Amino acid sequence: MTGFSWGLRVYYEDTDLAGIVYYANYLRYMERARTEWLRTLGCEQDQLLERSGVVFVVVRAGLEYKTPSRFNDVLVIDLEIISLGRASIAVRQDVYRATGGIVPGLIGQETRRGTVANALVCTAEIRIACVDAKTLYPRPIPEIIYSELSREH
Amino acid sequence: MTGFSWGLRVYYEDTDLAGIVYYANYLRYMERARTEWLRTLGCEQDQLLERSGVVFVVVRAGLEYKTPSRFNDVLVIDLEIISLGRASIAVRQDVYRATGGIVPGLIGQETRRGTVANALVCTAEIRIACVDAKTLYPRPIPEIIYSELSREH
Amino acid sequence: MTGFSWGLRVYYEDTDLAGIVYYANYLRYMERARTEWLRTLGCEQDQLLERSGVVFVVVRAGLEYKTPSRFNDVLVIDLEIISLGRASIAVRQDVYRATGGIVPGLIGQETRRGTVANALVCTAEIRIACVDAKTLYPRPIPEIIYSELSREH
Amino acid sequence: MTGFSWGLRVYYEDTDLAGIVYYANYLRYMERARTEWLRTLGCEQDQLLERSGVVFVVVRAGLEYKTPSRFNDVLVIDLEIISLGRASIAVRQDVYRATGGIVPGLIGQETRRGTVANALVCTAEIRIACVDAKTLYPRPIPEIIYSELSREH
Repeated sequence: MTGFSWGLRVYYEDTDLAGIVYYANYLRYMERARTEWLRTLGCEQDQLLERSGVVFVVVRAGLEYKTPSRFNDVLVIDLEIISLGRASIAVRQDVYRATGGIVPGLIGQETRRGTVANALVCTAEIRIACVDAKTLYPRPIPEIIYSELSREH
Repeated sequence: MTGFSWGLRVYYEDTDLAGIVYYANYLRYMERARTEWLRTLGCEQDQLLERSGVVFVVVRAGLEYKTPSRFNDVLVIDLEIISLGRASIAVRQDVYRATGGIVPGLIGQETRRGTVANALVCTAEIRIACVDAKTLYPRPIPEIIYSELSREH
Repeated sequence: MTGFSWGLRVYYEDTDLAGIVYYANYLRYMERARTEWLRTLGCEQDQLLERSGVVFVVVRAGLEYKTPSRFNDVLVIDLEIISLGRASIAVRQDVYRATGGIVPGLIGQETRRGTVANALVCTAEIRIACVDAKTLYPRPIPEIIYSELSREH
Repeated sequence: MTGFSWGLRVYYEDTDLAGIVYYANYLRYMERARTEWLRTLGCEQDQLLERSGVVFVVVRAGLEYKTPSRFNDVLVIDLEIISLGRASIAVRQDVYRATGGIVPGLIGQETRRGTVANALVCTAEIRIACVDAKTLYPRPIPEIIYSELSREH
């Protein structure tokens, strides 16, 4: 299991009147991180749709909110595979707030795990199904991606 | 020119850390109001796409932000046609904050103009083009909708 | 246990390129429904903050996505209390897609449960904590709201 | 006038059922770019609020949508000052879609203008006022930021 980390910045749009990141937005962040993770495995989701006619859809999400994050925070999202099936995959995604000095180039980039001191903001288990883009019925994960995922698991 | 009004409520998701509605969200509100307006003219946009292969896309938007709105505010959006062409339409949309007693049934409903005292929050001119859903090239507005729009203009 | 239902419409902003409602948006819908539910119990959250210095924050969310919903769908969200503590509350929120004829006035309004035929879209358990608005430390739910919640439970 | 460029990636959350970026989201992108631009000038907006009690708010926005952008597109936002007053500033922000090979490190980073071939997606003029965070009345831009802005203009 190798894992994956990815950094982002919190902007005005992400916050609410309580001065903290609105709770639904962590699901947006996690989707961004999964997209970047799949990209590092050679899976571009637009090509996946075009060539294989399948899309990944989230079928279950369990989130625990630990501490708030705020405007200007740099967040790092760790990802690891929990389980891998022929037509679905479950991942754990932990969102940390980078503290101390910010590593240059952290944002919008893959990040080595453990390179920044940090505080846990949100932790989630996300189950994703591979489905036919038209019918939304389950379909096997295309072989080339499945083998990459197996290697990560 | 008959005009159209439509009401909505401001929720947590709409606000930012300054405690006011985030500026991009007025474009979301205005799209909701345009959808409801088209519905009153007999135009369901999902059927429009399915039957005529066209979608409406915004090609220009000019907004002036007058006063902020906040969580729990009831907003009313007035709409009127500015100009109508064969493949495009321009509308004016004014967003007001309902003040004083809230008229029951105001939210999520068409509203007669002038039924509530109010303060101007945001005013916009929006130009919309009718385009082919695949190529995004201009296409005439389907006749049945065009004739309804002409009547409103 | 009396329960609460509330209706909304799916707009363009809510969908993604897969043509279905983006998964994070159900959390936005559920927050809207909770806001309206609290309002029926006499709790306006802006006054709650001003008078008691507390806000409700989500500390846990578990969602299961059952079937997709799409542009123009009318969704109805049922809510019931699962458990009630002195400083936190857990609710179940089920999102249904209204099928068959749409009951006029369904949208943006409280709705009697069971008045529309429907299909389950998403089901969630949401745990909410009452916290100090500044420190975000747990605080007892103000007595007047707590007693209303007890009656509902 | 030196100008500023900043890159970002389009994700699932940004698209709508037409398969293109939802029109309101360009305002979110532009805010992100303005935040990063102010940061390069030494202005952190959370510190600005804390120390000077002022926030920047958008008072006018004029957008022209030229061509659509889609999932996975890399966008680059150019920014330059149009006019600078004591309590307000107007900027031009042009959103381009990076075409051809993507420059590594483009995303989430400041970018030299003209380093990527590109297609114009959206162009905007944004007027921002400096206002008191509580009253929202106009306030002079703090001297240290004003002098940095003057140098850029």
